[in-house]
Amino acid sequence: MQKKILVPLAYGFEMVEALSVVDVFRRAGVHVDLAAVGDDLQVVSSHGVPVVADMFISACRDNQYDLIVLPGGIPGSENLALSVDLSELLRKQNDAGKLYGAICAAPALVLGEKGLLDGKNATCHPLFVEKLPSQEHVCESVVFDKNCVTARGAGLSIDFSLKLLEILLGPDKRKEVEKQMALI
Amino acid sequence: MQKKILVPLAYGFEMVEALSVVDVFRRAGVHVDLAAVGDDLQVVSSHGVPVVADMFISACRDNQYDLIVLPGGIPGSENLALSVDLSELLRKQNDAGKLYGAICAAPALVLGEKGLLDGKNATCHPLFVEKLPSQEHVCESVVFDKNCVTARGAGLSIDFSLKLLEILLGPDKRKEVEKQMALI
Repeated sequence: MQKKILVPLAYGFEMVEALSVVDVFRRAGVHVDLAAVGDDLQVVSSHGVPVVADMFISACRDNQYDLIVLPGGIPGSENLALSVDLSELLRKQNDAGKLYGAICAAPALVLGEKGLLDGKNATCHPLFVEKLPSQEHVCESVVFDKNCVTARGAGLSIDFSLKLLEILLGPDKRKEVEKQMALI
Repeated sequence: MQKKILVPLAYGFEMVEALSVVDVFRRAGVHVDLAAVGDDLQVVSSHGVPVVADMFISACRDNQYDLIVLPGGIPGSENLALSVDLSELLRKQNDAGKLYGAICAAPALVLGEKGLLDGKNATCHPLFVEKLPSQEHVCESVVFDKNCVTARGAGLSIDFSLKLLEILLGPDKRKEVEKQMALI
């Protein structure tokens, strides 16, 4: 069955972090819902570029996802944290032991704030490490623990996306996409 | 004086290749014109995501740029090659010995086709190498020769963007941005 993932976008999202995930997963044939958190489908990134989402997050409430990925960016991460629909989707994802990921400010400002890093090793952007539950912090570029993957920041966007793909679809699919992207 | 660069977007552009450049250069305080090639400011990427440009390429005709960067993607690169305004901007850029860059399919399908790689070492996505003037091909991830920088594909988007930044603003600015992006 085709896998399905969710990437929520809120005003001030980091565009390379968000769109690397969309790029890598769509190359792999995965269904990606790019969902706007807020009242406009056109969402402006932290570097001033408007990107048009597929749908509103409210339309995703009852969907089942194999993976939910949170891009960072300021104030994008803060805005993601305010979404009741996203909180509920993340809570259900964790209760079911299903995969989620976050990068840059989002591990601390969204996952950490909602208790979704409790008992899990994680990383985030150096500027936000103090907001992570300290016992969980690991100083690595990309950290995978239990059902959670976190990464430090925008420069790791492609590594983070490929790690998520490998977990969901295996190392052969990762290699296939790496080849398409001229990495190998 | 503030540096100014141009990133043209055409239907079917590779979004990570285009937006990594915008991200890296706006972080560094450079003015970026994201210009639509075509008749709609909203340009759909090769992975189906609409992105809104700042202006049309026709409005850039008389501007002076420190750098022009061409994202790849299919049919994005082919559509860039069809733009008379962009061709003229690239010709003037080369005549003035000023910097330009291209990644993925764009070195072969745009620069090569227009004679803008003549006498310059270059690289491109492995699928398009045969369309490069053969004597110029170098099998490296990112190639800088004279006033031209080329890169192999989407996986190298951030390396390519940082290399261009380093050439334009020096290694200290590159390090500053790498730190922001959690690469160092």
